Amino acid sequence: MFKIRLLISMLTLAGAVSTVSAAEALPTTAPAPADNPTTAEKVALGQMLYHDPRLSSTGTVSCASCHNTMLGGEDNRPNSVGVNGQTGGRSAPTVWNAAFNQVQFWDGRAASLEDQALGPVTNPIEMGMKSWDDVVARLETIAGYRAAFTKAFGKDSISKENTAKAIAAYERTLITPNSAYDRYVKGDESALNEQQVRGMTKAVELGCTGCHSGPAFNGPGVFQKFPVNSNGYFEAKYHFKKDKGLAEVTKKAEDENLWKVPTLRNVALTAPYFHNGSVKTLDEAVKLMGKLQLNQDLTDAEVADIVAFLNALTGEFPQQSMPTLPPTPGRTFN
Amino acid sequence: MFKIRLLISMLTLAGAVSTVSAAEALPTTAPAPADNPTTAEKVALGQMLYHDPRLSSTGTVSCASCHNTMLGGEDNRPNSVGVNGQTGGRSAPTVWNAAFNQVQFWDGRAASLEDQALGPVTNPIEMGMKSWDDVVARLETIAGYRAAFTKAFGKDSISKENTAKAIAAYERTLITPNSAYDRYVKGDESALNEQQVRGMTKAVELGCTGCHSGPAFNGPGVFQKFPVNSNGYFEAKYHFKKDKGLAEVTKKAEDENLWKVPTLRNVALTAPYFHNGSVKTLDEAVKLMGKLQLNQDLTDAEVADIVAFLNALTGEFPQQSMPTLPPTPGRTFN
Repeated sequence: MFKIRLLISMLTLAGAVSTVSAAEALPTTAPAPADNPTTAEKVALGQMLYHDPRLSSTGTVSCASCHNTMLGGEDNRPNSVGVNGQTGGRSAPTVWNAAFNQVQFWDGRAASLEDQALGPVTNPIEMGMKSWDDVVARLETIAGYRAAFTKAFGKDSISKENTAKAIAAYERTLITPNSAYDRYVKGDESALNEQQVRGMTKAVELGCTGCHSGPAFNGPGVFQKFPVNSNGYFEAKYHFKKDKGLAEVTKKAEDENLWKVPTLRNVALTAPYFHNGSVKTLDEAVKLMGKLQLNQDLTDAEVADIVAFLNALTGEFPQQSMPTLPPTPGRTFN
Repeated sequence: MFKIRLLISMLTLAGAVSTVSAAEALPTTAPAPADNPTTAEKVALGQMLYHDPRLSSTGTVSCASCHNTMLGGEDNRPNSVGVNGQTGGRSAPTVWNAAFNQVQFWDGRAASLEDQALGPVTNPIEMGMKSWDDVVARLETIAGYRAAFTKAFGKDSISKENTAKAIAAYERTLITPNSAYDRYVKGDESALNEQQVRGMTKAVELGCTGCHSGPAFNGPGVFQKFPVNSNGYFEAKYHFKKDKGLAEVTKKAEDENLWKVPTLRNVALTAPYFHNGSVKTLDEAVKLMGKLQLNQDLTDAEVADIVAFLNALTGEFPQQSMPTLPPTPGRTFN
């Protein structure tokens, strides 16, 4: 059903760069849905909306608060802090390269970036707006947003749907190409050092690529069970199974502990790890993945090699300009 | 003692642009102290530190959280939200043009931007770091900061003092020149419309410029009593006197309700108003200033004229690039 993009075919012939065609560099552009083609006007509007704390009830939380584009696209916390100091149970996924996710949210409940953008704004523990009608009403009173929506979508176009479309269009530009791995895949053998090649080879041998392959290392499948092999010791320490993942949405027993396979792109920058952010370091995360998913006890040296390889998946972050948010002269919402 | 920069001398001869030499446009650069000359390296480092939430205990609050450079340099809230959802009693002053303040904080307890920068990071209700030693220790572990401090201050230079110096150097670049008022002062009579000229004239006639004159409209004095004329009605409504201002620092009766005169630059963008953020609109703020400071009952038309003039003090916000914050690969502080 899914075409398996075999990193392994590269590695069984390791060193022969001419054979790496099966491995894929990260694309530099992301495909957009037919009903939301990416335009410069939408991206500019989306960047403002994404960074605007006035999309939250208290005026303190923007998309960027938890998915910080100045960092690795999230907040480096176990769980994020929403309005009034509230926290949830899951760790914010990175926004960088989210355009290459097949589904969004840890439990995959959103099929697109547009769908995802509709969630946090009215979530009471995230951005806390009472309704999208309230969001739209607020935006309507800001002259700069009226003008920016007109440019992006035409006259009188401020709506829930267009707000989500603009944010999604901006997010599709958040791509980090040209990692050491990408350069290696494109033929520069010197881009990875010996340890990183060793780590890559080991990752393939172990079977990590069964779930983490393709250009974003998040396929070929969409969902996977995590943890596969656990026991009382691990559960007492990390509480991975407490949150049922996809089953929290579908209420089906077969979906228990199924999770969207997260990208490994920039994984070195997104500690702490896993859906509940319970693991502080990448070393520990790799060790746990070996044990819990593959039933392998990795040595410290093997872990270090794989971590070295994972660091080679850190891409180049595009230089962004800082948006100036449209003002509300003489008044405030808060 | 202070040279009074007489906007009034312009206005008694209103319309004659050749006479406006006494009124001053906002400078495009700010003077730096002898021991902290502004350099591009310090500014770049300072911009990163200013926007880095890892300078807070929870990793959620940066200087920019409350002094948002994408907005009017603050958060448009009555009071700001620090770590763990805590709030204080004062409203965040704008960082834009703070370089032209004679003292910093509402109570003027910091003599320089450098002194000011030392406060919030270890304030338990703001950024909540236990000590500056902890801040320095954290920065020391971030390779990108080690490199950036070396560039700015030389080898092994991460310290409390240099962190403050870098942030202050960055803040000195946050200047908004070329407002309509500045263009008017420079000779473009068409830069202000009739209502704005009327508002400016009225502001001078009333005596607003007794406290709010000079290029940043925050002198010639440093401190002023506020409110001057109050009564039970106003106090019950706004609680202006509850916070004793400078006296909270000095503990002297004569300093009660003395406050730093805030700049009027970009005042239209910094609602809500006054030290406790208790006034939501600029219209109401102007009306209250008339009553409480000058014992004048302004008509709605007079208020509208003055507000129109104050809107002419909104400057041009320089386009900034968004800093990429130096990562901590494979680990986090939170």
